Amino acid sequence: MELKSTSKNKQTRLSTSPYKGTSDSYPEEMFYRNYLFGIWKETAKSFGYEEYDTPLLEEASLYKAKSGEELANKQLYAFTDKGGREIAIRPEMTPSLARVIAAKRKELRLPLRLFNIGKFYRYEKPQRGRNREFSQLNIDILGIEDRTSEVEITQFIIAVMQRLKAPKETYELRISSRYLLDYLYNDILKASEEQKSNITKAIDIFPKISKNNFPKYLKEINLNSEQIKQLEEFLQWNLNDLEEIKEKSKGAKQLLELFSLLDELEINNVKFCPYIVRGLDYYTGTVMEMFDIGGNKNPRALFGGGRYDNLLEIFGEEKLPAFGLGWGDITTLDYLKTYNLLPPYTPNTELFITLMDKEYTKESFRMASFLRDNGINTEVQLEEMKLSKQLDYANKKSIPWVLIMGQEEKEKNKVLLKNMKTSEQLLVSVTDVPAKIG
Amino acid sequence: MELKSTSKNKQTRLSTSPYKGTSDSYPEEMFYRNYLFGIWKETAKSFGYEEYDTPLLEEASLYKAKSGEELANKQLYAFTDKGGREIAIRPEMTPSLARVIAAKRKELRLPLRLFNIGKFYRYEKPQRGRNREFSQLNIDILGIEDRTSEVEITQFIIAVMQRLKAPKETYELRISSRYLLDYLYNDILKASEEQKSNITKAIDIFPKISKNNFPKYLKEINLNSEQIKQLEEFLQWNLNDLEEIKEKSKGAKQLLELFSLLDELEINNVKFCPYIVRGLDYYTGTVMEMFDIGGNKNPRALFGGGRYDNLLEIFGEEKLPAFGLGWGDITTLDYLKTYNLLPPYTPNTELFITLMDKEYTKESFRMASFLRDNGINTEVQLEEMKLSKQLDYANKKSIPWVLIMGQEEKEKNKVLLKNMKTSEQLLVSVTDVPAKIG
Repeated sequence: MELKSTSKNKQTRLSTSPYKGTSDSYPEEMFYRNYLFGIWKETAKSFGYEEYDTPLLEEASLYKAKSGEELANKQLYAFTDKGGREIAIRPEMTPSLARVIAAKRKELRLPLRLFNIGKFYRYEKPQRGRNREFSQLNIDILGIEDRTSEVEITQFIIAVMQRLKAPKETYELRISSRYLLDYLYNDILKASEEQKSNITKAIDIFPKISKNNFPKYLKEINLNSEQIKQLEEFLQWNLNDLEEIKEKSKGAKQLLELFSLLDELEINNVKFCPYIVRGLDYYTGTVMEMFDIGGNKNPRALFGGGRYDNLLEIFGEEKLPAFGLGWGDITTLDYLKTYNLLPPYTPNTELFITLMDKEYTKESFRMASFLRDNGINTEVQLEEMKLSKQLDYANKKSIPWVLIMGQEEKEKNKVLLKNMKTSEQLLVSVTDVPAKIG
Repeated sequence: MELKSTSKNKQTRLSTSPYKGTSDSYPEEMFYRNYLFGIWKETAKSFGYEEYDTPLLEEASLYKAKSGEELANKQLYAFTDKGGREIAIRPEMTPSLARVIAAKRKELRLPLRLFNIGKFYRYEKPQRGRNREFSQLNIDILGIEDRTSEVEITQFIIAVMQRLKAPKETYELRISSRYLLDYLYNDILKASEEQKSNITKAIDIFPKISKNNFPKYLKEINLNSEQIKQLEEFLQWNLNDLEEIKEKSKGAKQLLELFSLLDELEINNVKFCPYIVRGLDYYTGTVMEMFDIGGNKNPRALFGGGRYDNLLEIFGEEKLPAFGLGWGDITTLDYLKTYNLLPPYTPNTELFITLMDKEYTKESFRMASFLRDNGINTEVQLEEMKLSKQLDYANKKSIPWVLIMGQEEKEKNKVLLKNMKTSEQLLVSVTDVPAKIG
C-alpha cells in the first residue's frame, strides 16, 4: 500500500460519496432513525428486555455452521486479518447471540430477554428496502419452550406498531412453522432429501412470482404433477386445514395453540401463511414475517423472525429453546415515510445567545453554562457578526428562543429574551430565563 | 470457502470467544456503556450539537491521504470487496466527517456543530485501555476560526466530567499547538525537513520514556547536542515562555488567547503542555489530550483532539476551520471504574407478573399490556412453575415489585401487589397499580 499525497493535486482528489450500498446520515436522517430506535428501545425495556452487544467482527466460521449458503458465502464480507484470522463483518445477529449465551450458559438466569440495535453488512445489490449497510433491532427470548414466548414477541411487535402510530389496516404479521414443512415433505409430498431444500426455496419464492409461472418453476426442480398439485393446495391452507392434522403434525398443533392465544388477546393483525419459511438454516418451529399490506410500495418484509432451538449445538452446548426476530431500519423507515408517520424534524437547540460585542464573549459562555445546567439546550454565537445575520441564523435553524445582551442590557444586568415565533421580547435576569421558557 | 457442518460433530465445535481484541457486552457492561454514552449525548445536545452518522466501511484511500502512516497502514482493517473495491473499516471518524461536509459544502449552514457515537477498528495489540474494537464520541465544530471554538469544546469536556461526577483533582486537559512546532523547528532548532517528523515522534514519546533515556533517543535520531538542549528546554516551557514569543509565533499567540479565556471562565483543569502533538497528520493549530492524574493506573490519554483546518482539501474543497475530538469508551470506562464513578447496575424490569395457573396466561398478558401502557416496565412469567421459584427469580433479578393473582384474587377481580424490599402486600385492582408504584 502506498501513501498517496492527494491534498495538493486536484486531479486525484477523493470522492465525497460514501462506499457503494451505504449512506451518510445527516442530522435530519439521524433524527428519523433515532425516532425509530427510541421506540424500539423503550418498548423493549417496557417488556423487561435487557440490552447487550457483540463485536462487529466475528470469526467467519460462525456463519458457515448454520446461517445458510447465501449469508455465509455470497453475502458475507469475509477477509483475513493481519494475523491470518478468517474474519467477517456480521451479516446478522443470531449466531453472535448464540455464542454469547453459550459462553456463559451456566451462569445466566433463564429466561433471558435480550435486545440489541446494531449495524450489519451484506454484500447485495443496493435497491429499495435493501442496502449493504443496515441497522437492525434484534429481540430474543431464550429458555421458554412454550408458545407464550411467541405471544410475548408478537405483543411486542404490536406495541411497537402502535407506538409508531401505524394504521392497523397497513400491516400484517404472517406466521407459519418449520415443523409444518416436515409434515408437508414426509407425509404429503414424500419428497426425497435432495428435493426438500429445492422445495423450501420454491415456497420462499411463491409470493414473489406470478401464479402462472409457479408450476413451471416446480417442474424445473423435478416435482411430479401430483406433487405440484399437493404443494399448490398446501400453500392455500388456512387454520381449518391445520385442525385436521393437529394430531399428526407438531407444527399444526403449535400454530393452533399460538393463534388461539393471539385470538383471545384480540391481536388480529396476524395471519397463518403456509408460504412463510425464512431463508436461514437454523430455524426450527415458528417463523414469521411482517408485511406492508396497505399498497404495493414496500414489497419486502419489514422484518422476519423465528425459533432456533438447536443453535447452541454449534458450540457443543445443549439445546436451548429460543425465539426472536431481526427488525431492519431501511424497510421500516420506507414504510413510515410511505404512510407519513415520521414526526417533524426538530433540531436540538432551544436557545441561541447572540454576541453584540467580542467583549461579551465571557458572559455568553457563562450564561450558556447556567442555562444548560438548568436543562436548556443552548447554542452560543462564537464570532462577531451583524445582529441581523445572527437572528437570521437562529431563524433558519428554527431555534425558538434568542437571548440578546447589548450595552444597555449589560448595564442593567439583564438580557433581552426573544420569542422567535411571536417576536415578543422580555427584559429579564438570566436566572429567570429557565422559568420563562419552561 | 467451504461450508463446514459442525453441528453434529462435537470435535469441530465453534469457539464461544469473541474475535481477538473485541469483547461481548452482557447487560451489565452495556448498562455502564449506556451510562457514559447517555451523558455524552445529553451534554452534546445541551450545547446545541446535532447527531450524524457515517458508514462503518469507507474506501481505503480516504485514510491514505492524511491520517498518517500508522492509521492508514499498520492499523487499518483494509480489504477488497467482492466487486474489487479497496475498502476499510473506519479507524477514526474525522476523515468521514470531512467527506460528509465536503459532499454538501454549499448547502450546510455554518457553524456546524456535530456529534456521533460509533464503533471503530484498529489492528493493535490488545492491552489495558486499548482494544481492536472500540466506541468513540466524536464532537466537532466547523466554520469557526476563532479560539472560541476551542473554548466551547473545552466547556463541553468539563461539563461531561462534571456530569460523570469526576473529582477535579483526577483529570487534566493538556493543550498545545501544532503551530508552536513550526516555531520550534524553524526558529529554534533550525531542523531539516527529514528531522521534523522524527522530532515530532520524539516529542510524542517524551512523556512515556524516562528522563535519562530521552537524550539517548534524541541522539539516535541524529540531533546534535545543541538541538537536544534546546528541545529539552522547549519541553519545559510554560505560558510565560509563550508570552516572550507571541509576536513571532502564531501558535504562542493562539494558545495565550485560549488560556486567557479559559482562565476568565475559571476553567482550571487545563494546562499548557508543549509535548502534546497528536499522531495524526491532518492536525493544524490547537491540539489537546485528557489525562488521569490521580494515580498511575490509567497512563493512556482518555481522549485527544485538535484543529484540522485543511482537511477538506483532500476532496478538492476550500479550507474550512474545524476543531474536534474523539473520546474513547475503553480508557474512560477504566477511569470511571478506577474512581468508583459508575452507578449501580439496575435491570430494566420494574414489575414481575407471576403465573399461578396456566389458565391465567391470558390475564397476565392483558395486565402486562395495561401496565406497560402506563409506563411500568413489566415482565411476565411465561411457564407454570412453583410460586416460590418465581419469587426467587424476581428476587435474584432485583425486580422491585411483584404482582400475584391466584384463584382468590381472580374471583375478587383483584391482584396482590408485593413490594419485594419491604415484603408488604396490598390487595388492589390492576388499574390502581400504576398509582401505587409511581
